[in-house]
Amino acid sequence: MASWFQIPKNSPFSLANIPFGIISVQSASRVPAIAIGEHALNLNAFASSGHLSVFDQPTLNAFAALGRPVHRQVREYLQNVFRADTQFPQVLKDNADLQKSALVPLSQVTNHLPMQIGDYTDFYAGLNHAYNVGVLFRGPDNALQPNYKHLPVAYHGRASSVVPSGTPLHRPSGQILANPAADPKVPTFSPCKKLDIELELACLISKPNDLGKPVSIEEAEDHIFGLVLMNDWSARDIQAWEYVPLGPFNAKNFGTTITPWVVLIDALEPFRAAGLEPGNRDSLLPYLREKRAENAYEIPLEVEITNKGGQPTLVSNSNARNLLYSFPQMVAHHTITGCNLRTGDLLGSGTISGKEAKTQGSLLEQTNGKNPIKLADGSERLFLEDGDTIILRGTAGTEGNYVGFGDCVGTILPAVSF
Amino acid sequence: MASWFQIPKNSPFSLANIPFGIISVQSASRVPAIAIGEHALNLNAFASSGHLSVFDQPTLNAFAALGRPVHRQVREYLQNVFRADTQFPQVLKDNADLQKSALVPLSQVTNHLPMQIGDYTDFYAGLNHAYNVGVLFRGPDNALQPNYKHLPVAYHGRASSVVPSGTPLHRPSGQILANPAADPKVPTFSPCKKLDIELELACLISKPNDLGKPVSIEEAEDHIFGLVLMNDWSARDIQAWEYVPLGPFNAKNFGTTITPWVVLIDALEPFRAAGLEPGNRDSLLPYLREKRAENAYEIPLEVEITNKGGQPTLVSNSNARNLLYSFPQMVAHHTITGCNLRTGDLLGSGTISGKEAKTQGSLLEQTNGKNPIKLADGSERLFLEDGDTIILRGTAGTEGNYVGFGDCVGTILPAVSF
Repeated sequence: MASWFQIPKNSPFSLANIPFGIISVQSASRVPAIAIGEHALNLNAFASSGHLSVFDQPTLNAFAALGRPVHRQVREYLQNVFRADTQFPQVLKDNADLQKSALVPLSQVTNHLPMQIGDYTDFYAGLNHAYNVGVLFRGPDNALQPNYKHLPVAYHGRASSVVPSGTPLHRPSGQILANPAADPKVPTFSPCKKLDIELELACLISKPNDLGKPVSIEEAEDHIFGLVLMNDWSARDIQAWEYVPLGPFNAKNFGTTITPWVVLIDALEPFRAAGLEPGNRDSLLPYLREKRAENAYEIPLEVEITNKGGQPTLVSNSNARNLLYSFPQMVAHHTITGCNLRTGDLLGSGTISGKEAKTQGSLLEQTNGKNPIKLADGSERLFLEDGDTIILRGTAGTEGNYVGFGDCVGTILPAVSF
Repeated sequence: MASWFQIPKNSPFSLANIPFGIISVQSASRVPAIAIGEHALNLNAFASSGHLSVFDQPTLNAFAALGRPVHRQVREYLQNVFRADTQFPQVLKDNADLQKSALVPLSQVTNHLPMQIGDYTDFYAGLNHAYNVGVLFRGPDNALQPNYKHLPVAYHGRASSVVPSGTPLHRPSGQILANPAADPKVPTFSPCKKLDIELELACLISKPNDLGKPVSIEEAEDHIFGLVLMNDWSARDIQAWEYVPLGPFNAKNFGTTITPWVVLIDALEPFRAAGLEPGNRDSLLPYLREKRAENAYEIPLEVEITNKGGQPTLVSNSNARNLLYSFPQMVAHHTITGCNLRTGDLLGSGTISGKEAKTQGSLLEQTNGKNPIKLADGSERLFLEDGDTIILRGTAGTEGNYVGFGDCVGTILPAVSF
């Protein structure tokens, strides 16, 4: 699709994308927007010219709740408005005043969380990640728990500390075991020494379901607004001590970073691909069984570490195909008990790792706390150091028609002093 | 304290209590209120007479965020208004019009969630419960995990399905192991067959803390608005299959019931008592060490089951003293990583069980799935049956001055059919 508007060929926000987000410019209020090339289109200003009227909110919740047919129609309308052969040239192409008031360079924009997130749930659907971590803890024979191939394992996460890309986070402090072999085990108080990343995708919920009303696997995708990239920061040493018997808590609650632009589920449709172990899907209980085999996405993913000095090092290449369960399966499983999902709820995929070297979505898997990664400046990393900046990227498609999430960025600040 | 207003001597809502909640009457809007004897005082109507002005909201979040000194002042003022020797007789005692417009019999009131709950966290601070359950799973020698006496174990819960007392819940369905001993383990899809209760207290957060700013143990109590009673319904068979390695998820996400009246932390001050194992507190890391020894509350608690036929059976008597960690310790631990708590966040205590027979806060502990409880009508229970109504009660103090939570009620409806 060609556009009358200048969109760089390498932009993740091509005309094929049209991701939605919440922006503010200088001290103005938060408004809905789309990203298009190197600009944001302020949808509040755009709508005030009379063409759309749901964009006077500081979050996307109201728009998302309208449901997938509306999202699809609005996205297609906006694509049409920007197309070289637009049917509506008078709306924006030939409307210099509206261009001036509604189009803002991304460099002048502050991004915010796209939605008010009610609950955040994190799944564990990255088969290779679950296997890799299982091998580290239990050896290759018992790497995966017996339930793993029957249900998408998940835990409730912390919604309050989900932050938009660019928000720096302090290294967390807490209880760690300086000497795990000692008996009795006595913890010490310390800044986390094994701070890690987790490369994930996450979906945001559009249409809610009532308490006591499960969402069927057939209907599940229509409850998904779109996807974002997510870094589920993890304090491995805090986790190792605290997590029995109820799972991770303080190891995860200090921050989770997401990209601010929601890529609509329809924008990802062209990138459907077969997921892992299609045979496994056929053996699932019926409430998790999907009709189509292409229940994953072909989205190349990467992890980059930039140290204090500013030198970037690409440390991992993965792909969204490395998930055993799809987002519709996660929705169906989450609600099978009658649990209600609300508009804006966030469901993380779990860490997305490949099988080969340099394709893992966490440092734990790459280094096992023993075999350091070498960065471009010659320094080494087992885990993150203060001042490190992590950038996750995910972009589907081909040049000129990229559908990407933009950068998911977070910098580690030193621990708070006590 | 005597009142000019008729307050039954056995009411949990004496003049010594003054709990806050959100009510509606017929189809009118939700408004803040206090419970006083068998009435609710509509604080919106009361405030409109010019005496208070923060009560025009459908939740208590705005009032709670004002902080403890304000809550204390408002509570003391309302006590004064209702006292026999009130200094302000013209406000309500001698104001028949306002009495008519603002006082509503509780029987005519619909209760709602008192606050918009951001995140819900459930702790595991009931030492006897953790021990009892540990014995069932690992035997008496390893009943408590090594971390248990060093930190208040917790997991993130599901906020969307927290409901006010009186809301019926469907029995959840999901994956269970019909034959746990089989190899390989293959789950079946079924309504939960081991549906249980958990008797808990929970606190609601008033003053928030910013991300990256831990709350010290000294300041923690001032972040607590008040307490409610809570039933953390649990599907034991779903939990047993799903919970490795990340903790309970679908076993808990289908519903959590709380009492609608928030008993302010100041109203509980007279009932401070020594908690369990005071020696343990001295050995905690400094961020969890409280100055005063009385870090628990003397609050008798009870569990009643009423079957379909309406016959009640008291199945358990416990006490809030059976907690190893206090709510301020939970707040300090939760935030030590920098995690932000928001106004309205809910922190559960974990199941509160005694050591003796008939003092446990769950059926699992009482029956171990083997030794049934006999109900008043002669029927037996290992776990809950459809149509069972569970009532939790908790009341501190003495006749005429009870400080209670009122009933925490939930009825189990049959599983949704698929």
